[in-house]
This record gives sequence, structure tokens and C-alpha cells, in this order.
Amino acid sequence: VEENGTSRDLLLTLDRTSGLRAGIESALRDAVRSRRLRVGAVLPSTRALAADLGVARRTVLAAYQQLAAEGYLDCRQGAAVRVAWQPPEPPAAPASTTWEPRWDLRPGRPDVSTFPRTAWIAALRRALAGAPSKAFEIADMRGQETLREALAEYLRRVRAVVAEPANLMVCAGFTQVLFLVCQVMKERGATTFAVEDPSTPRYRDVVESAGLTPVAIPCDERGLRVDLLARTTAAAVLTTPAHQYPTGVTMAAERRQALVRWAREADAYVLEDDYDGEFRYERHPIGALQALDPARVVYAGTASKTLVPGLRLGWAVPPPALLPAMLTWKERQDRGNSVADQLAFAELVTSGEFDRHVRRARLAYRSRLDRLRTAFPRVTGIAAGMQAVLPLAEPEPAVLARARRAGLALQGLSAYTFEPRDPALIIGFGTPPAHAYGPALDALAAVLSGR
Amino acid sequence: VEENGTSRDLLLTLDRTSGLRAGIESALRDAVRSRRLRVGAVLPSTRALAADLGVARRTVLAAYQQLAAEGYLDCRQGAAVRVAWQPPEPPAAPASTTWEPRWDLRPGRPDVSTFPRTAWIAALRRALAGAPSKAFEIADMRGQETLREALAEYLRRVRAVVAEPANLMVCAGFTQVLFLVCQVMKERGATTFAVEDPSTPRYRDVVESAGLTPVAIPCDERGLRVDLLARTTAAAVLTTPAHQYPTGVTMAAERRQALVRWAREADAYVLEDDYDGEFRYERHPIGALQALDPARVVYAGTASKTLVPGLRLGWAVPPPALLPAMLTWKERQDRGNSVADQLAFAELVTSGEFDRHVRRARLAYRSRLDRLRTAFPRVTGIAAGMQAVLPLAEPEPAVLARARRAGLALQGLSAYTFEPRDPALIIGFGTPPAHAYGPALDALAAVLSGR
Repeated sequence: VEENGTSRDLLLTLDRTSGLRAGIESALRDAVRSRRLRVGAVLPSTRALAADLGVARRTVLAAYQQLAAEGYLDCRQGAAVRVAWQPPEPPAAPASTTWEPRWDLRPGRPDVSTFPRTAWIAALRRALAGAPSKAFEIADMRGQETLREALAEYLRRVRAVVAEPANLMVCAGFTQVLFLVCQVMKERGATTFAVEDPSTPRYRDVVESAGLTPVAIPCDERGLRVDLLARTTAAAVLTTPAHQYPTGVTMAAERRQALVRWAREADAYVLEDDYDGEFRYERHPIGALQALDPARVVYAGTASKTLVPGLRLGWAVPPPALLPAMLTWKERQDRGNSVADQLAFAELVTSGEFDRHVRRARLAYRSRLDRLRTAFPRVTGIAAGMQAVLPLAEPEPAVLARARRAGLALQGLSAYTFEPRDPALIIGFGTPPAHAYGPALDALAAVLSGR
Repeated sequence: VEENGTSRDLLLTLDRTSGLRAGIESALRDAVRSRRLRVGAVLPSTRALAADLGVARRTVLAAYQQLAAEGYLDCRQGAAVRVAWQPPEPPAAPASTTWEPRWDLRPGRPDVSTFPRTAWIAALRRALAGAPSKAFEIADMRGQETLREALAEYLRRVRAVVAEPANLMVCAGFTQVLFLVCQVMKERGATTFAVEDPSTPRYRDVVESAGLTPVAIPCDERGLRVDLLARTTAAAVLTTPAHQYPTGVTMAAERRQALVRWAREADAYVLEDDYDGEFRYERHPIGALQALDPARVVYAGTASKTLVPGLRLGWAVPPPALLPAMLTWKERQDRGNSVADQLAFAELVTSGEFDRHVRRARLAYRSRLDRLRTAFPRVTGIAAGMQAVLPLAEPEPAVLARARRAGLALQGLSAYTFEPRDPALIIGFGTPPAHAYGPALDALAAVLSGR
């Protein structure tokens, strides 16, 4: 390209739909970015390019000036216009190689196909119609007041939590509650954080990312071995008292008492992950541990199991001593959850739609558990939630490999343990949509029989 | 309450609507929580209570067992049933003493009253109708693919960002982008992080919370003093090149070039906060700095100004070298943004509704800026965004105090500076709803004239 070259040398494809000048700019930018025009290349004079394109010279001049301001061109007075920039190597897209199973019996997720789309939209419409404009601003790090009121009432009623709107904060799922508690513990000088063995490995990573060392406390058939906590320096313990994840046992009454006693004596905190407290099938649900000492227990709940994980809606009722610091970290991290989701969920809860949805889901999961127990009588764990333990007569890897070949996604207990345990599968019976549940159980039976 | 006392001594108010057993449990729980029944108090025998309430003895027994499992009662075989728990002191609610100004001309927020509620609900309805169930699961930490596709196209078109759906991640507003970048920098061994002087104080707190020391780099009328960056050990710099916040200048072309050169030479990164790139009123917007070197610049945008801050919707286009680590931290922190918002926003953008909304907002803000400049000719800064600088002839505190007495919320420049500058106000002309804008300017004029 020479000073007196015509625009044909530039092969400018002029898209006139957004205006002549924008079209010229865009075409030149593309030429530079695609390396058709290299650094130092001389562009046609404004006169030459204007004549060739059949546009006013001032249009070309404006385009050159714009590109100079963006750093693409060098437009010094009295000198030829030159390309001033060269593009870096194009960034490579991360490879995505995801295995798509035919059936999925891995734990930790509900049946997402039952998300009440119509009820959600209706709730959002009603909520937005009544919401004041200031709801759309960033104000209270605890979340929207309407949702905190609805949740406090709900948690008192359904989970016997000691909850007030003022002491409740909306979070992005349980993961964020854990992240915030870890940041606060670290800030208070903690070095270790106790977790259950077995438990979700991802949570150990969150604990470690805050600079804390996870300490594993074994769980037996009565739940967390609270007696072993006293031998640690843990500033807090993450526990699933209502339905241990993933073994499915309930923490015994004397352990609950001992746990809050430990927290008081050690000046420590308990993080109660009540991830599926709504789903209890054979007996009355156990109320939240938090009620035994709201000054020592951070209660945490989530809509990930009752609705869907993709909403990332959770909540915490922290002790007053921790709430302000957790709100400070929330502000540093995201400054709140979506106002739209908060208003819609508040309306869903107060209208009673949420209770109806949970009741339907409870019946469906209960019937799934019954079918699972009928097909696999060795299944253990209380009748609750959406996961159960299926002991294996052979090592996990062999079963998992056969399952994968059969298109069945399974999860072994060893993915959760610190200390070795007898081989078992953690069956998530919530995940498959209704029509796929029977075939998924058949596939599991086939895999276990060695076929 | 004695072993042989009747239930009248307990003053049990039995709510039978949720069943007899639940009613007894709830009444006893309340009695323990309210300290009417203290630790060690003996409860009536199951026989006595059953007779008094006129219910089956097994109902009372089941209630006692439930409360024992929850840790409230002690029900040992052969012994009297006793209260086993006492409630802690009730947590105090944090005091909330918020001053409610009549008019608000503080910067940083749009006119939230213009949030397109109807269009948002319509977009969500269309999006949910077409979304597969797996959209509601937690999968890709980058966010929903439909939104990443819509945003990549939008950012290329409107902000000349080098963006592909694969290299873009949805975040909870700009704050989360900064938080993630800081965590990644800290993990890579960084100790200092450069910010502009003046700049948003809250961002310094985020930098510090990651264990990094913020280093202030002055801005002059050509933007960030890039020459001073080379004297620091900063691993990254947070900058607002299109429209410096809060001074309102644009980074000059040679500074843009020098900035990416510095990043390459120092093996450092630039975090480009393009907080109001959609709002430029007099000349063509400057394309994103990121396009000059996508391997060195993290581009960050937000819906906080184009829509509302309360959605907490933002996005980042990080260099490939940083993206995986930022996704890891996103997973630790919240595991993604709300699927509902992501799907709705994608539909809003692809349908063209978002462009129409932004165009309307641009006209409205431009007209507000014109009115501000007419009323206060000393206003400086380019014609862009929703804030402008108004130099003061007297110290800021005097003006702010008069404004507060007049019910007018204002913000001084000194709230943003490291080094002292001449007194000035940062006028946010986006915040008041349309009907309040004229009165707000009148109130400002009155405050400035000393009335």
C-alpha cells in the first residue's frame, strides 16, 4: 500500500448500514486486526480514499482521527498516515471435551426439569409490579428486605431456625456462605477449619483457597465425631447434621448438644449446611441445629435442591458476631445477589407456591427412593434428600469403568473420603428426569451384575 | 412444673392446624425458647399430658422423642423427661440509621426508575420457553453460552472488543471481576496492584482484602501517567481509559499505546474498567483498549449503568493466560451468576431491545448533561457517562454540610483522591428520576450560592 494507492489496494469492504464513517473505521480496524495492514504500512491520503470510495474527504479524515485516538493509526500533521499497531497472537479457546452420559445417577443435584418456569415468571411479574425503584439499587448487603422477611418466616416454620430478617443474609448458594465464613475466620486469625470425613471435596478447596488448612473429622453412624474436634485447633467446623453428606446419617441428639458445647468452650463456630432439610420422608424432620445456639452456629440453606442450582440462591443466618464481617466480604466480592431473583423468590415463598412445589417434589423423590430401595435392598441411609449409599461387593473403579462404558454416570464414595472406607456408590436419585429414572435404575442393575 | 403437673401448668397453646403432634412439638419448643421452661425442668409424663390435651399417649410420646432428637429434651428410659437446653441471649439486630436525602446527585448510579420491567419479563419468558433443562444446572463457570454469544457479538460491535464466546466470562458486576483478578494476581506472587488517583475508594479495599498493596498512579488531563507505572512493581493496573472515573478525561492515544507496551515489558496486566462505554454524547466512542493487546488487557463491562446495579450483571474478557485461574476462583466464590438473569439478558440483547433501551437512556442522559452544563458552565470532563466534575470556589466540607442540611446528597472529589486536588464536586446526573432532576439542580444552585 503506497501513499498514492487507491482503496482498492486496501480491499475495503464498506458496510454502509451504520453510516459511512463507521463503515470506513470498521473496515480499517478489521484490516489492521487481521494483519492485512502491518505496523508502519502507509494508508492512502484522505483525498485519495475519499475519491475512491465516493465519500466526502472530511468523512475519511474523521475516520482516521478516530482510529488514531484508538491507537490503530499514527496521524501526525504533515506526515503520511501509518498503521501504528499490530495485533497479538489470537487467544486460543479452551478445549471443551465433556462426556455426555445417557443416564446420570451422580448425587448433589435435583431434577432440574421440574423447575416451575411459569410460576417463576408469574412471581417475578407480580413482584416487579410492586417493587419500588430503589430496589434496583445496591443498598443492603444482606439482600432485599422482602426476601429476608419471607425467608425468616419460612425458616422458622419449616426448619425451626432462630431467624429474623435483620440477621439473615442472601448469598450465592452454599458455596458463597462457606467462602465468606472462611474469609472471616482467616481474618480472625484462624489457621484450621474442620470438615467432615467423608464430605464434598470442592469444599476443601474453598477452605484451602482462604489460606486455611482443612482438618478431617470422621463421621460414624451417629454423625460427626464431636469428641475428636476438641483435639484440633479448628476455628470452625462445616457439618451436615440433618442428613450427613454423602453417607445419609442423622447427627444424634447428644452429638448435637456436644457440638454446640464444643463451640462455646473453644470459642469456635459451627457452619450448618442444611442442604436438603426440606426432604425428609419417613419421620418428622429434625429442626435446625442452629436453634441450640444461634450465637455459635451459622445456619446455611439453599434453593439449589428445592428449585435448581443454576439460580445460585442461598441464605445464611450467621451469629451476630460474624454477620458484619460476612457482609463486608460480600461487598468486596459481588455486592449482592440479583434483585430480580430475590424479588421473584420472595413472592414465590409468600404466595405459598414454593411450599406447593416442595410438596410435589417431596412426593416424587420419596417415590424414587422407594423404587431404589426395592431394586437395591442394600441401600443405606435415612429416608431423606436425594442421595443414598449403595455398598459394593467389589472395588469402586471396576464398577465405575463398566458404568462409563454403559453410558451411566456414577460416583463412588471414595471421591468424598479422607480415610479409606468400604467400597460404595453414592446414588443421586434426584437427577434423571422422570421418564429416564426407570431406565437409569435398569442400567445400574446391569452394571452391578457385571453385564 | 412437676412430674405430675398438668399441661395447664405449661400453658400449652395447641395449634392443631398442622396436626396434633406438630402442635405439641411447636408449643413445647416455644416454651423452651422463650425460657418459660428452663434447663432441668421436668415435663409432665406422657400419660398426664395426653389426658389433659385429650390426645393419644403415643402422640405425646412421638413429640417428646422428636424434641429429644433435636436436643431440646432429655428422654432417658425410666427417668422423668427434662428440658435439656437453654436458649442463648437473643441476637441484637444491627442498627440501621440511613439518611434519606430529598435529592441525590452523587455519582456512580444510573436512573434506576427506567429499568425496563416489562421488556425484562417478556425476555425472560421467551428465554425460559426455549431453554433446555440443563441450563438450570451448574456447568460452565464462564456462564450460559447464549449470553456469552450475545455479549461477544455486542462487545465487538459496540466497543470494538476482541471477544469470543469462549474467552468471555459472566461475573457479578465489575466488583467481582476486580476481586477475581486480585485473587489471581496474589496467587501468581504479586504484591502490589496499581490504581488510578483519583479512583473509587471501595476498589482499594478490594485490592487490600486480597493481600495486595494498592499503589496510586496519578491521572492528568491525558489520563493515567503510564510513565510512572514503570517505577512500580505493580503486577496489574486498574484503569478507566474511555472515561476516567471520576475526573471524566479520556486516555490519550499515546498513553494507550504506552500502557500496553508497559504491560508487555513488565509482564503485567491491565484491567480495563469500561463502566460507561455505551454513553458518549458528542463524538464517536473510543474503542476498547483491550483490542490493542487482548493478551495483556482484561476487558470488563457491566449492565449496572445501562440497566440497573441491582442485577449484579457484568462480564470480563480476560487474556487466555488468566481465564482458567479466574474461573477457578469464580467456582470457589459463587459457581456462577443466576441462570434466569443470564437467559433474560441474552434475549434482551439478541432481540435488539437492549440497544433500544440504551439509545433512549443515552438521549436522556445527554439532555441531562446539557442542562447541567447550562446551569453550571464550570463543569469539566468529556460529554459522556453520567458524572461530571464541578470545580468549587470554597472547600468541599462547607459545601457538603450545606447540601446535607438542604436535603441534597453530594460527593466531593476528595473522596476519591490519594494526593490533594483543588476542591470539586463529582456530580452524578444519572441518579434522580426525570421529575426530580430540575429541582435537584435548583437545590445545587442554591447550595453553591451559599443559601
